[in-house]
Amino acid sequence: MSKPSLARGTRDFGPEQMAKRNFIFETIRRSFQRYGFLPLETPAFENLSVLMGKYGEEGDQLLFKLLNSGDFSGKLIEKDWSEGYKPLTSKISEKGLRYDLTVPFARYVVMNRGTLAMPFKRYQIQPVWRADRPQRGRYREFYQCDADVVGTDSLLCEAEIVNLLHDILPALGITDFTVKINNRKILTGIADIIGAEGMEGPLCVAIDKLDKIGKDKVVEELIERGFSLDSIILLDPIFSLSNDEEPFRELRTWLEKSEIALKGIDELEQVWKMVKLLGLENPKIQFDVTLARGLSYYTGAIFEVKANNVQIGSISGGGRYDNLTGTFGVPGISGVGISLGVDRIYDVMEELSLFPENQTTSTKVMLSNFDKEAFEFGLSLLPKLREAGINAEMYPDSVKLKKQLDYADRKNISFVILIGSDEIQSGKLTLKNMKTGEQQKVELEGIISQLK
Amino acid sequence: MSKPSLARGTRDFGPEQMAKRNFIFETIRRSFQRYGFLPLETPAFENLSVLMGKYGEEGDQLLFKLLNSGDFSGKLIEKDWSEGYKPLTSKISEKGLRYDLTVPFARYVVMNRGTLAMPFKRYQIQPVWRADRPQRGRYREFYQCDADVVGTDSLLCEAEIVNLLHDILPALGITDFTVKINNRKILTGIADIIGAEGMEGPLCVAIDKLDKIGKDKVVEELIERGFSLDSIILLDPIFSLSNDEEPFRELRTWLEKSEIALKGIDELEQVWKMVKLLGLENPKIQFDVTLARGLSYYTGAIFEVKANNVQIGSISGGGRYDNLTGTFGVPGISGVGISLGVDRIYDVMEELSLFPENQTTSTKVMLSNFDKEAFEFGLSLLPKLREAGINAEMYPDSVKLKKQLDYADRKNISFVILIGSDEIQSGKLTLKNMKTGEQQKVELEGIISQLK
Repeated sequence: MSKPSLARGTRDFGPEQMAKRNFIFETIRRSFQRYGFLPLETPAFENLSVLMGKYGEEGDQLLFKLLNSGDFSGKLIEKDWSEGYKPLTSKISEKGLRYDLTVPFARYVVMNRGTLAMPFKRYQIQPVWRADRPQRGRYREFYQCDADVVGTDSLLCEAEIVNLLHDILPALGITDFTVKINNRKILTGIADIIGAEGMEGPLCVAIDKLDKIGKDKVVEELIERGFSLDSIILLDPIFSLSNDEEPFRELRTWLEKSEIALKGIDELEQVWKMVKLLGLENPKIQFDVTLARGLSYYTGAIFEVKANNVQIGSISGGGRYDNLTGTFGVPGISGVGISLGVDRIYDVMEELSLFPENQTTSTKVMLSNFDKEAFEFGLSLLPKLREAGINAEMYPDSVKLKKQLDYADRKNISFVILIGSDEIQSGKLTLKNMKTGEQQKVELEGIISQLK
Repeated sequence: MSKPSLARGTRDFGPEQMAKRNFIFETIRRSFQRYGFLPLETPAFENLSVLMGKYGEEGDQLLFKLLNSGDFSGKLIEKDWSEGYKPLTSKISEKGLRYDLTVPFARYVVMNRGTLAMPFKRYQIQPVWRADRPQRGRYREFYQCDADVVGTDSLLCEAEIVNLLHDILPALGITDFTVKINNRKILTGIADIIGAEGMEGPLCVAIDKLDKIGKDKVVEELIERGFSLDSIILLDPIFSLSNDEEPFRELRTWLEKSEIALKGIDELEQVWKMVKLLGLENPKIQFDVTLARGLSYYTGAIFEVKANNVQIGSISGGGRYDNLTGTFGVPGISGVGISLGVDRIYDVMEELSLFPENQTTSTKVMLSNFDKEAFEFGLSLLPKLREAGINAEMYPDSVKLKKQLDYADRKNISFVILIGSDEIQSGKLTLKNMKTGEQQKVELEGIISQLK
């Protein structure tokens, strides 16, 4: 009998929020389909063998794990209890909640590669769960909208991701945004050039924070991570590269001795060219050599999208990965994808007041409920309104009109039909516009054509 | 590197199944909205205090429980380990996966009752999870589509549920179905009449199985459950009641001494009448006094829907509950609802071949990819097709045409545009119909108007 509460870090979405969220989902879904992506859904939970080890040690910790059902502890011996919770976890839990949509997708591709038409373009719009510490704007359950192509290394896919973003974001009303783009190969080349071969991992992690903590702190972190002073001095150009129209010229000069870096630059230039051929004359893309993104599976282009003029982190990110399915024993399936974060997009749209009005899916017209005769007459009208595709309902109880109108008002119902004995006799119904308060006498056919 | 697999009892839904499932979801959603229901979504997991004790002891066992994150076992002492898994569960798990949509809805209503416009009509389409033993047609993750009205005891709501089912099922192509209906008050009255006051719970559980196990086994079960032979003899009319047009007359005679039974009969008769006033001349409803439904929270009308001529269990069920929110400390909010099982509906539609063709959301037209010149020309066409709302893609690699056409074929793409040097010069593109094999030369505008 205690007062119920939500689990920490989770939310309900009531009718008003649902209408706004569905607007976002539908816009994204429509664009995904227009670009040839097909829908996929995977289960909420996966075997832990599928999920563990894919998101780094921190990710493993943030996976929600399901307790085995039945007598999960019956076969344990004392040693199992005493070794701490990490080894114990694997003995009492075999399944975990989806942490992102990419790893389940890779698992799907591996399991179905015999029957999929390759290259396979799929989109997936589903919630994911992370046992993060909840804070403002960070939830334990949130939706991701992903589109990926696997089975080709064509750079057309990268270019199309840029165009897709230029399709989706303006359709949502977000016109002022920047698609930052980089290539992991360039970062690999930089590691080589500064004499820190194979250290692009820690280099990326440190560089990635430049935005947030500034150059001095990044240098500190590089020292901590074991980069020599010589390397750090050689790295200096990265902090002063211009972001102008031709960002690649300086870079080519700096990195001319790294074959892999030059390949990365070539790839970006080709993407740039295709983006324009695809009809974007002034694409909102910006090369950012300091963009690294945390996830270690990227091997080519990397993307990140910021909405400008709002204090909200990136709303989308993605990149090319050459060996994601390799972790499931099937190497050599290259892919590239993008993920849109619905919660951040929602926050951006709220802050900039971008949600169109009338996004509600609410009832269009309510029939009032006075007495038995009017009630029965009203019942005969209801199916006619609905058959015409109009969302309609009758107030279920014979209570005071004020209470009925109050209900209509709070539910954002646009019109109320008042039925009295006059109306029943004449066939002319009183239609009340709930916004203006205006009332008019109209026959049912007139109401239907007006509301349709 | 091991071969990945799905968690037991779960499924992936690839593009083809998604298209079919979305057809079901969209049809149901549209009807729900047309009847004035508003969307709600609740989190995948809830505090166990919200879920436990709501579904009976068996239900408690079937809840998927989440292991507490972090060092869940650090504070446990030896006694905690030794007392068995049930008391241990509550010490290492605080959250569980949603088991149905009704209890989270009741939790939502209680938490938001100050701001909701009552009566509150909501629909909810989300997956639920049960740690059942997986078997044919029974999964551990499955979708429910629920519509409920709370905050009124008007019987209009019951009638509207019947009409809603007559709206949804034919829209899915399921025209041959039966809505079985009963009223828990009648079952309570029967328990009184046969001298087994207060035993309607076990009576319902046993009677509910009549369909599956037959009269003799039901009688055996009643004896096991402590019903006296006298009671069982008095119960006999229940097995011989006719299901004809006027099923209530016999019942009234039999139960004339039970006030509550007569109230239940009155309610059903009113629902019957309103269903007809709502425009259904020959409603597919059937009174079934042996329909009981397991869930103990029903207090009034109960529904169950069967598709006829298929060997698949009920596809929908629901009823009136007077005190669901009472378990959260807020009594007196009566409600009534219906739940549709998407998986069973899917199976019925497959078995009866009811899915409309072309339910795919696949690409409408693919541009082939020959050489650099054709590729660049194709890129300029793509955005024009998409702007016209046509799902379009270009094959990403320059490979043999056969391979490209094979891809289009497997992805169910209807048309392929072939671009050679002729096409680039003349502006007339070759449009290949993938179903008929037919080819024609058309300008882009012609293709757009043809494919739109």
